[in-house]
Amino acid sequence: MRGKKAVLGIGDDCAILRIPAGHEALITTDFSLEGVHFRQDWQSPECIGHRCLARGLSDIAAMGGRPIATFLSLALPDGLPQRWVDRFFRGLLRLAEKYELELAGGDTSQSPAGVLADITVLGSVAKGKALRRSGARPGDRIYVTGALGESAVALQLLRRKTIEKRDVFPEPRIAVGEWLVKNRIASACIDISDGLSTDLAHICEESGVGALIEAERIPIHKAASRFANSLQLTLNGGEDYELLFTSSSNKNVPNAIGKVAITRIGEISKATQLMLIRNSKRERLISKGWEHFSNQ
Amino acid sequence: MRGKKAVLGIGDDCAILRIPAGHEALITTDFSLEGVHFRQDWQSPECIGHRCLARGLSDIAAMGGRPIATFLSLALPDGLPQRWVDRFFRGLLRLAEKYELELAGGDTSQSPAGVLADITVLGSVAKGKALRRSGARPGDRIYVTGALGESAVALQLLRRKTIEKRDVFPEPRIAVGEWLVKNRIASACIDISDGLSTDLAHICEESGVGALIEAERIPIHKAASRFANSLQLTLNGGEDYELLFTSSSNKNVPNAIGKVAITRIGEISKATQLMLIRNSKRERLISKGWEHFSNQ
Repeated sequence: MRGKKAVLGIGDDCAILRIPAGHEALITTDFSLEGVHFRQDWQSPECIGHRCLARGLSDIAAMGGRPIATFLSLALPDGLPQRWVDRFFRGLLRLAEKYELELAGGDTSQSPAGVLADITVLGSVAKGKALRRSGARPGDRIYVTGALGESAVALQLLRRKTIEKRDVFPEPRIAVGEWLVKNRIASACIDISDGLSTDLAHICEESGVGALIEAERIPIHKAASRFANSLQLTLNGGEDYELLFTSSSNKNVPNAIGKVAITRIGEISKATQLMLIRNSKRERLISKGWEHFSNQ
Repeated sequence: MRGKKAVLGIGDDCAILRIPAGHEALITTDFSLEGVHFRQDWQSPECIGHRCLARGLSDIAAMGGRPIATFLSLALPDGLPQRWVDRFFRGLLRLAEKYELELAGGDTSQSPAGVLADITVLGSVAKGKALRRSGARPGDRIYVTGALGESAVALQLLRRKTIEKRDVFPEPRIAVGEWLVKNRIASACIDISDGLSTDLAHICEESGVGALIEAERIPIHKAASRFANSLQLTLNGGEDYELLFTSSSNKNVPNAIGKVAITRIGEISKATQLMLIRNSKRERLISKGWEHFSNQ
């Protein structure tokens, strides 16, 4: 792997890493548990490995950070074919390599039930510059990267048995997050892992504000657009790993950052409620949690 | 909690931490899985929580580092009483508080089977000063902290159903590790998590050397001393979390560091074998892995 950043990686009691001068460390951990976050019969091992790391990288992106190294705790059940494990690592390491990220440690164990993975990602960001959930102010505009609903559609089709398998490879928005920090554009930021309605509520709670979203402005992924419930899929579907951020109205936010589309979808309000404008009518926006890939 | 070290803790996409100037970051992750690393019917929730964090802290100690923050990914099965969870956290946080360590983040999830925990510990150590496994040289003396065999005896008695429950609260040797770094005493170091014979082999492999251990010198924990197989318990019993380190023969190693006894148990050899002297006879020392608290 290019860009060897670990002073000492796998093979000692700890990994040793250097944080760039003038930077703070960012750390996130995320489970990927079989039967809760994924199912072997619904996704390829490569896809499961990719998504395992993408969950952690997306959290680094949401803070505007750059990833440095990753750590994987992985428990495997008896009888799991080595080929499955190899393919899981292929998916995970392909994504790691894209970000010149080293797998610098972790733990391995026998599993009492299914494949159990917990990913830790270490990143860094210039001191005091991290994007937080708590900085949104009334009047700030609300933006989202890319398009929403692809993972939710896949889950819907799998549950209805319309399809047997579906791989979705979400791309963590690392470059967008770094751009937002560098250009001091975002007042608050989060990644959409639990769904737009839920993650927007996190920003509003932490910032002590509310929000007004315009339904017609939400960018719908092409995979979701032909479904009658596409609005619900984009509002409540999780695991899109797009960024949701706010920006003061006097900032100039472009229509794209790199090749990633940026869409304005609403505005932060003083009243601490989430509202949706749909067909020119206002309604309450209810935050619905995301149930991942469990079979419910 | 005293000593708030996190710039930003639980409640955002990542935690933000500062690494002291002139220091490198240390990171370790360790599973504690029900049925593999612990059993609810054999240990109290407080003990399970303590040991979950002790595993990670011990890895920081083995590098000579100081812990900064910890992160817990915790999956809980349906129907687990809240009281169990509260007691688990009580044990974990009591140990964290002792080291002025903040629980700065992590993940929570429903569990497909049993209590699943993965602990991440972030620590730091002065640049280039970390104790590694790879620095042992022929002629170096081999030392161990404290006494060995307490966890192995507990496991033996539980398996034989001589006792129904047994809590063992190992103490991570953070202060000893820091002292070894500060006084430049250790040429190599590891924590005894898999058993003396196995962890010594790790040092020897990484250093490209062998070792000669004197059986009569190994400090036996008082809980283990009355058993006929006490030597086997100390050689092959894991989860004692004592430190095993080597030091050049020209260094002055005290009999105690703080209140922790330091015992010389052997010497590093050029021949890449592990040997044991017992009743004045030499034999090969076989590395036997540790099976944790599974019911085997």
